[in-house]
Amino acid sequence: MTTTTDSPTAGHGYISDKDRYLARLKRIEGQVRGIHRMVDEDTYCIDILTQISAINSALEKVALGLLDDHLKHCVVSAVQDGGDEAEAKIKEASDAIARLVRS
Amino acid sequence: MTTTTDSPTAGHGYISDKDRYLARLKRIEGQVRGIHRMVDEDTYCIDILTQISAINSALEKVALGLLDDHLKHCVVSAVQDGGDEAEAKIKEASDAIARLVRS
Amino acid sequence: MTTTTDSPTAGHGYISDKDRYLARLKRIEGQVRGIHRMVDEDTYCIDILTQISAINSALEKVALGLLDDHLKHCVVSAVQDGGDEAEAKIKEASDAIARLVRS
Amino acid sequence: MTTTTDSPTAGHGYISDKDRYLARLKRIEGQVRGIHRMVDEDTYCIDILTQISAINSALEKVALGLLDDHLKHCVVSAVQDGGDEAEAKIKEASDAIARLVRS
Repeated sequence: MTTTTDSPTAGHGYISDKDRYLARLKRIEGQVRGIHRMVDEDTYCIDILTQISAINSALEKVALGLLDDHLKHCVVSAVQDGGDEAEAKIKEASDAIARLVRS
Repeated sequence: MTTTTDSPTAGHGYISDKDRYLARLKRIEGQVRGIHRMVDEDTYCIDILTQISAINSALEKVALGLLDDHLKHCVVSAVQDGGDEAEAKIKEASDAIARLVRS
Repeated sequence: MTTTTDSPTAGHGYISDKDRYLARLKRIEGQVRGIHRMVDEDTYCIDILTQISAINSALEKVALGLLDDHLKHCVVSAVQDGGDEAEAKIKEASDAIARLVRS
Repeated sequence: MTTTTDSPTAGHGYISDKDRYLARLKRIEGQVRGIHRMVDEDTYCIDILTQISAINSALEKVALGLLDDHLKHCVVSAVQDGGDEAEAKIKEASDAIARLVRS
């Protein structure tokens, strides 16, 4: 009968498996640095584009994971608390989803 | 008479305004590092997502610029040289565009 | 105690302002028919592409609106009911968002 | 040693395998009509979203195919003709690609 999965604590501590996100972001940072080097060394353009597509996919994956965590924790907890807060949280999440879909 | 499609040779030197790309990529690298810090410090999820959307747009802009340079220089020059190379270059560009659209 | 996630029941009736969606979809259908005609009449390719981009944006807007309705009604009501249903609904919504972001 | 593949004729007759595009667009039109019906009948939202993602992918595939045809024929032929026309065509293609990537 439990509803909350990993109930959110103060300080937005909602991110599940934070170390995995941090490791992924480190890797993405390295990939961006790699593109900088590729441009600097006049690497063949198509190879740079392939790499940019890979980074975009990796960033999207991070974003989708964070969004899922957000829905599971912040939004669920706002709904459980009741009141206008839930509506505001959902509006905010929908806006963030729209930005992701369009970016 | 070479028909190598993707093997980069030294000095593709086709990138116009290279310094501008390098500066943009430095900025993007800093933004990714910023997201790493935001996750580490449990920043509010929606703010992280907004930042990821911004990076995706910035990377897309870099990719579209490089692609335009590529069409203008590598593809045009392959067409001018004649032969199968032009067809191979266009196939390669189309594949890169497809990856960008889908990423 | 039911945990059916995706089996639609009669009358999900959650769509706000249904007539607006129906009118938009009618318009999109007409736009697709317009592209069919453009291809048939060998219209200049770039003009067809511009039109396809417009349709994709219009469809995305419909999808984002429906998703917002879904979060506001189905997900909120599942959370209020408590139980595993909420978690399942959020998983399902996250998967749909991922498909949208990638499509 | 031929350079032109299927040299473009007057009337933009550059679309290879036109019947295949027309058949695909007919199918997409039917899918949009299907979504209209789904919304009208209050079908479960997630199922509608899945269908919209499928249409977006199908439209993207049409767009990428047309763009490839355009590069192969219109752009190649403009480059072969020489002059400013080639540059204008590439600018136009790059703009269309940017719209696709962002839509």
